[in-house]
Amino acid sequence: MNERIILRRVTYRYTIDYEIVSAPNLFDPANPALLSVGKLDHARRFVVVDSNVERFHSAAIRDYFSKNHIEAKIISFTSGEENKTMDHYLSIIRELDDFPLCRRDEPIIAIGGGVLTDVVGFVAGSYRRGVPHINVPTTLMGYVDASIGIKAGVNFDGYKNRLGGFAPPVKVLLDRSFLKTLPKRHILNGVCEILKLAIIKDVELFNLLESYGAQSVEDNFQNEAGGVILDRAICGMVEELQPNLLEEELSRKTDFGHTFSYGLETQYESSLFHGEAVLLDIVISTLIAWKRGLLLDEQVERIFHLIASLGLILASTNLDANMLWRSLQERIYHRNGLQRVPLPNGIGSCTFVNDVNLGEIEQAVHAVENRIAIKNGLIW
Amino acid sequence: MNERIILRRVTYRYTIDYEIVSAPNLFDPANPALLSVGKLDHARRFVVVDSNVERFHSAAIRDYFSKNHIEAKIISFTSGEENKTMDHYLSIIRELDDFPLCRRDEPIIAIGGGVLTDVVGFVAGSYRRGVPHINVPTTLMGYVDASIGIKAGVNFDGYKNRLGGFAPPVKVLLDRSFLKTLPKRHILNGVCEILKLAIIKDVELFNLLESYGAQSVEDNFQNEAGGVILDRAICGMVEELQPNLLEEELSRKTDFGHTFSYGLETQYESSLFHGEAVLLDIVISTLIAWKRGLLLDEQVERIFHLIASLGLILASTNLDANMLWRSLQERIYHRNGLQRVPLPNGIGSCTFVNDVNLGEIEQAVHAVENRIAIKNGLIW
Repeated sequence: MNERIILRRVTYRYTIDYEIVSAPNLFDPANPALLSVGKLDHARRFVVVDSNVERFHSAAIRDYFSKNHIEAKIISFTSGEENKTMDHYLSIIRELDDFPLCRRDEPIIAIGGGVLTDVVGFVAGSYRRGVPHINVPTTLMGYVDASIGIKAGVNFDGYKNRLGGFAPPVKVLLDRSFLKTLPKRHILNGVCEILKLAIIKDVELFNLLESYGAQSVEDNFQNEAGGVILDRAICGMVEELQPNLLEEELSRKTDFGHTFSYGLETQYESSLFHGEAVLLDIVISTLIAWKRGLLLDEQVERIFHLIASLGLILASTNLDANMLWRSLQERIYHRNGLQRVPLPNGIGSCTFVNDVNLGEIEQAVHAVENRIAIKNGLIW
Repeated sequence: MNERIILRRVTYRYTIDYEIVSAPNLFDPANPALLSVGKLDHARRFVVVDSNVERFHSAAIRDYFSKNHIEAKIISFTSGEENKTMDHYLSIIRELDDFPLCRRDEPIIAIGGGVLTDVVGFVAGSYRRGVPHINVPTTLMGYVDASIGIKAGVNFDGYKNRLGGFAPPVKVLLDRSFLKTLPKRHILNGVCEILKLAIIKDVELFNLLESYGAQSVEDNFQNEAGGVILDRAICGMVEELQPNLLEEELSRKTDFGHTFSYGLETQYESSLFHGEAVLLDIVISTLIAWKRGLLLDEQVERIFHLIASLGLILASTNLDANMLWRSLQERIYHRNGLQRVPLPNGIGSCTFVNDVNLGEIEQAVHAVENRIAIKNGLIW
């Protein structure tokens, strides 16, 4: 009576494939990078540009497309987590509707920070079930993290990145010179993601940060060592992302610093940068790992000394252990029933745990809030 | 200076894989089909049910989950194109936020027609970048078309299916008995998609419709021949979809009847069913094909006789050739710069053309509007 018969099995193999390309002098009209994907004859491009980038490069961008005989519609987007909303997503969609593009041959171009490429990625991924897009990161956070992966989305209903999808860019174009004019707070914002990778998976990157991090921050990563750090961070990020691009494996090293930060960001959306929330999470997680004996005293010292030497300052937000606990509970749903909290197991190595308890979080919060020198007069 | 260096190439192979399963007696608590994917211990299910289905099956559905010790949240959804909106999408998202699910082990269950599975598919495809969902079609349109593919989305800004994505269900469960209580207009709505397949790719299906179509419509496809027609339609549909699941090839036979219908549906959203718009498009396209010598007189006669014998009636909407022309222009963007209009080349065979002109559309519209017997006293 209830026999189930498989009528048809639908199977389809496909390949996601894109390049991350170094492309200096991006707005030089002779530089074909921005137009290296898509058609050029009687062609259009829909370009979403961060309003800060526009301030510096508006004329150059317009000039670039006009000299290349491309009809471009250039939309300005104001960065900031508070603009990562369905309203902004839909307003970009409406602009797109007013400027029809060939579905496959006229890629959308996203020029901006992580919020912008996340929102525009979701636009591209969901418009007509997906149109191509190119990412051009202009912040350090975008450069080493947001723009090189395929996650896209917006915040909704009080939840970070609640709506979105996997929207692979057709190309990611890196031009380090964008970082030149970046305010220091934005530089430090991105440094937190580099620090994350260093602690959880790459002791060599950690060493590089110890040796050249402070100078690179000072130089907005325009120095040679800064370039080496950026390359290593991107390679590390891709190494983690590539074999697990669709997050089939939910225990992800790159989630280090992204468990408690989730709740912090939700609570302090307008005042806390993503990296600043990640840094607080890194510190809490480091302390939990230390208490569990996963990090030696001197390793914790190295981490805190590095944080201080980079000029990173812990945001003076009110850390409510119960809120952080709720953040972890939400992540359990997101990680399909288990905590899967990545903790450093020595510097440059990772272990995943499923039994973090409220008491541990309270202890860590207490230590952070009182800026307690945990041992040996640690200063951070 | 402008040298572009490929820093990293990101490549990821992925397989979409799902089953279309015959699953009669779906709400029999002993039938495991609805719970054949996902966890069963301390488990939850979020179920979106068409309000008409709820009218007949509400108690049975609730009973099914409670007897299987599953905590279910059951949401009612009113069908109709006018409800295929971002507002309805977002209201389902909010309900989901209030009923947290494990991201991978507690699939959303969509029980309803094509609009419902399209909207819920988009919800599932974009919630947390994608959570699993099961499709249970309860209309003929859903059964032979909407629910078995992976397209999902909503209408927006006056455009059909403007926002959405490819959201493969983890399973499609077919229970033909849902069609028993379907109003005749809904049966005929789905028949238009079967007719489409028959004309454009499957002369055997056409023969079946000629022999058993009328009776099957009469019996709401509960008869044996009706079952054969449904199976053949589904197999034909899957045959077209499977090798091109992500629409990498934009010349698609299944787009027959889906060029001019796009504009018609947009204009008459609240009064015209999808299949009714498709039928008008089929007739216009058939007349264009006939004028071009792609169909013989007797083949056109067969098509119109079949339409009449199935009880299909052309909606008496105002056919504005200019509007149909604009619809075609929009489809050109969607089909990446070419018309790619599928036309029957004999019954059961297809050719794609890129040079349909306004004059041809006007001629066809004129013929349709005056119910002109084109030749030999055709009646339709």
